[in-house]
Amino acid sequence: MAAVLSPEKLSETHRRTLDQALEAIRTRGYWSPHPEHPKAYGEGGLPGSLGAAEGKAAFDAVLHTRLDLGQPGTDGWTGGEVSPYGPELGVEYPHAELDVLLPAMSAGMGAWRAAGPETRALVCLEILARISARTHELAHAVMHTSGQAFVMAFQAGGPHAQDRGMEAVAYAYEEQVRTPGAVDWSKPQGKRDPLQLHKSYTAAGRGISLLIGCNTFPTWNGYPGLFASLATGNPVLVKPHPRAVLPLALTVRLAREVLSEAGFDPNLVALAAERPGEGIAKTLAVRPEIRIIDYTGSTAFGDWLEANARQAQVYTEKAGVNTVVVDSTDDYRGMLSNLAFSLSLYSGQMCTTPQNLLIPRGGITTEAGTKSYENVVADIAEAVNALLGDDARANGLLGALVNPDVKARLEAAADLGDVALASRAVANPDFPDAVVRTPVIVKLDGTKPDDGAAYLSECFGPVSFAVAVDTTSDALDLLRRTIREKGAMTVGAYTTSAEVEQALETVCFDESAQLSLNLTGGVFVNQTAAFSDFHGSGGNPAANAALCDGAFVSNRFRVVEVRRQA
Amino acid sequence: MAAVLSPEKLSETHRRTLDQALEAIRTRGYWSPHPEHPKAYGEGGLPGSLGAAEGKAAFDAVLHTRLDLGQPGTDGWTGGEVSPYGPELGVEYPHAELDVLLPAMSAGMGAWRAAGPETRALVCLEILARISARTHELAHAVMHTSGQAFVMAFQAGGPHAQDRGMEAVAYAYEEQVRTPGAVDWSKPQGKRDPLQLHKSYTAAGRGISLLIGCNTFPTWNGYPGLFASLATGNPVLVKPHPRAVLPLALTVRLAREVLSEAGFDPNLVALAAERPGEGIAKTLAVRPEIRIIDYTGSTAFGDWLEANARQAQVYTEKAGVNTVVVDSTDDYRGMLSNLAFSLSLYSGQMCTTPQNLLIPRGGITTEAGTKSYENVVADIAEAVNALLGDDARANGLLGALVNPDVKARLEAAADLGDVALASRAVANPDFPDAVVRTPVIVKLDGTKPDDGAAYLSECFGPVSFAVAVDTTSDALDLLRRTIREKGAMTVGAYTTSAEVEQALETVCFDESAQLSLNLTGGVFVNQTAAFSDFHGSGGNPAANAALCDGAFVSNRFRVVEVRRQA
Repeated sequence: MAAVLSPEKLSETHRRTLDQALEAIRTRGYWSPHPEHPKAYGEGGLPGSLGAAEGKAAFDAVLHTRLDLGQPGTDGWTGGEVSPYGPELGVEYPHAELDVLLPAMSAGMGAWRAAGPETRALVCLEILARISARTHELAHAVMHTSGQAFVMAFQAGGPHAQDRGMEAVAYAYEEQVRTPGAVDWSKPQGKRDPLQLHKSYTAAGRGISLLIGCNTFPTWNGYPGLFASLATGNPVLVKPHPRAVLPLALTVRLAREVLSEAGFDPNLVALAAERPGEGIAKTLAVRPEIRIIDYTGSTAFGDWLEANARQAQVYTEKAGVNTVVVDSTDDYRGMLSNLAFSLSLYSGQMCTTPQNLLIPRGGITTEAGTKSYENVVADIAEAVNALLGDDARANGLLGALVNPDVKARLEAAADLGDVALASRAVANPDFPDAVVRTPVIVKLDGTKPDDGAAYLSECFGPVSFAVAVDTTSDALDLLRRTIREKGAMTVGAYTTSAEVEQALETVCFDESAQLSLNLTGGVFVNQTAAFSDFHGSGGNPAANAALCDGAFVSNRFRVVEVRRQA
Repeated sequence: MAAVLSPEKLSETHRRTLDQALEAIRTRGYWSPHPEHPKAYGEGGLPGSLGAAEGKAAFDAVLHTRLDLGQPGTDGWTGGEVSPYGPELGVEYPHAELDVLLPAMSAGMGAWRAAGPETRALVCLEILARISARTHELAHAVMHTSGQAFVMAFQAGGPHAQDRGMEAVAYAYEEQVRTPGAVDWSKPQGKRDPLQLHKSYTAAGRGISLLIGCNTFPTWNGYPGLFASLATGNPVLVKPHPRAVLPLALTVRLAREVLSEAGFDPNLVALAAERPGEGIAKTLAVRPEIRIIDYTGSTAFGDWLEANARQAQVYTEKAGVNTVVVDSTDDYRGMLSNLAFSLSLYSGQMCTTPQNLLIPRGGITTEAGTKSYENVVADIAEAVNALLGDDARANGLLGALVNPDVKARLEAAADLGDVALASRAVANPDFPDAVVRTPVIVKLDGTKPDDGAAYLSECFGPVSFAVAVDTTSDALDLLRRTIREKGAMTVGAYTTSAEVEQALETVCFDESAQLSLNLTGGVFVNQTAAFSDFHGSGGNPAANAALCDGAFVSNRFRVVEVRRQA
């Protein structure tokens, strides 16, 4: 049977987008092919896409069903997701017998390699287009596994995640085609005939790539590794977080559908859902067939993977402690509202949310005069209260706590120091079982060793520490120590001093951390844009990889050269 | 004091060469800026270069002296190299107090980072130009540490090593400039004002890079890592093999001279020579300041580094077992002479020398009829004898055994099976103490498990195994197993069958090994050309890195982004 999706057809549909993505990663201006607004989907919007009602209906239709992906080696069914908003999802997923599934995944690798970098990239773009068309459905799936509020689940779990996936495809393609497919090589030998060889260069994937998904951003954190590995010629086994299977299972289903239509083995992408307590990631991670691992999650398991999965290239995003240095500002109100939003968004459950606000004890200079440490802390607390005072708005920003661990940490945080802003429970009229909480801000002293135990650990969730430091210089020292010892996905800072700005840059260059300066408007330290911003640096303990750069893709394949006598 | 070497001056001298190198790595045709012929150096040749007599005089002048590099933290002197050709070199090198030297090396990193990718690349090219000008001197240093014959020491240790260094600079430069220095980012917001940020991107080195040199190819295997790290903003500490210090010490001297003249801290490049038995590599490898390691040497220590130097990016070239599959040929004489040369060059002491010749028991088809296994083995032995029959020619090809371990392995090899070609001692009239030996060829049976213990281990030195296999298909299976379990830097094959050729390619694609097919002329499986050939694949157990590709450079620095409210 001829493939429905021929290379010509794929090129016609997606080559221009690929070229735009390649241009975007080179120039890093704003670009995205995926609309952010929910109304851009459905009738009259993105062709072939599901609108709001259709997407919701598609999501509802999959609940309480068995999601049969047609995978080989299925030896049973597993599931059990419960939405952070309350409802049980009731979806059953295939459980895989690895000794059957893994060889089946490898079987299609030769044809996938032979297809070459361009066809692989275009197939990936078709998968992303199918995902994009079902953004409304996926938004509900992300919302009801991560606890994100709907608009965030829609944007971060939809277009932004798709952008990150496409960015990875662009990097993967560019990396593979920087070496030509073949060359005739001729080396002069003076008066004798030149030495001549015909040389071919083939990008060859390493083997099966394992994606270990996370609970909070199953698609956004999952797509880069998935598409980087697939585009470089590797089968991808998707092992979702047991609380966030559905968004990735739906993704796998679309990927398998496109691979089949394009004439490739659908088993190049498969799902590995696990039974409760099975801990399948640990088993899979050291299987010899697994040659690449992408992981987002705890530092403990990330470190374990790096130490033990020695047969694989391991890309990790682990925990970090994000800092904001508050030195001075000429837009005090703008700073307060920007910080309040950053602390509140998704209840601080982003790997990029600031945790430690370092504020000089003697206060900071602003356009409205000097503000003492106590003023600044009280004003941030007040800004958060103002932002979240309306319950409807609060629900829209906070979402729900993703799991009971976050709630427990939030409750324990109040005992760590003086509470500058207490957390409050917010009722969600649509989902009465949702656990919705506003952030707590706790005051700590940067010179007290006891307090260091708190602010030098990641306290994942809606918890921030207002850490009093003696001077900005001390703040810089603490920033350096925090990045070096604990890692950081983001660093923020407010200063009107060119000298302090330069010192901040030096710390971030030395310790390899991404810095946002004086954000007072509609961009927040915890948000990055694909094609322009790097997510993490890959150079401090929070993550060994950055999204997305050459290093993220260049070791997922190797170039195999064949030299022939000409 | 103004720098003697201004960025403008450097650009004038080297920018065009850099552009040519960038073009070469993209097109991979033949290119080299470093002349191969010894007569191209000195008066009337490469401007400013030392001729043969001057180079020899410079080498002689450094013998039995103390090579003071002016490094901080020098707490004594060490040395003790003895040429494989007999003479003691008698050079003393600084011994470093690490707690003084390492901080001194880090001190210059900020200015080196601020110089930017282009200036760093041009400074590296100036270092390479100074090295190139002293190729004759370095050739003697390589000869009298590695045991290579002079012409090989000249070419492989001179222009070819310099090519590999420049190739690494080109990759490093390209990788850093694929992200622009800055961009003004503007995201449309419908009817509202766009979101606007100014973003800067800085390539920031990781920290001190450690080069652990090898005995056989101190410059060729050392320059890629040295220049890749330096060009990406990292200080480089050079820890030579204790038997091969001089070539790298002279290199460090030139690098420090150029860095000073260009206005940078000379301590960005330093030497760590060790006292006998000190084992300083193990100490250095786990120091927190060391963030990158380049290593060539034994599998045991390479594996140890990968497992233990967890704070560093570790690039290793370890041992492998190189195979040649002999299936059929239409140029039997060409095949024999090509193989004879490959087995003889530098007494088989190249990481790329074939070890196992897999030959079907039933013989192979050639243009001169079928040749039995016994015929083929006898004819290869005869071809080696013919090549090395003349002692002067033999000395010029073989060089000297690099150390007593190689001699011991060679002597033991004769007991492993039937000897098809016995090794003989060759007298070297210029250096009576040199240990010069022709290769041994031992017959083994690919179906006997006992023989597998021999042919499935690397037997580094002038030892080859003529392994009888039942069929070519069995040879392919053994090839696959050998690459997968033991690694391979090279694979060679002779076949006239398109089917066998395709099967060979599939094995090499699957197992990630570089394949040379039907070489019968003046190119040999053990030689690779920078800018065109990859050295190793980085995808099998012989090496985790390839020279040179994106993966070799992309993780030596990280891009640090600074976002500012526009």
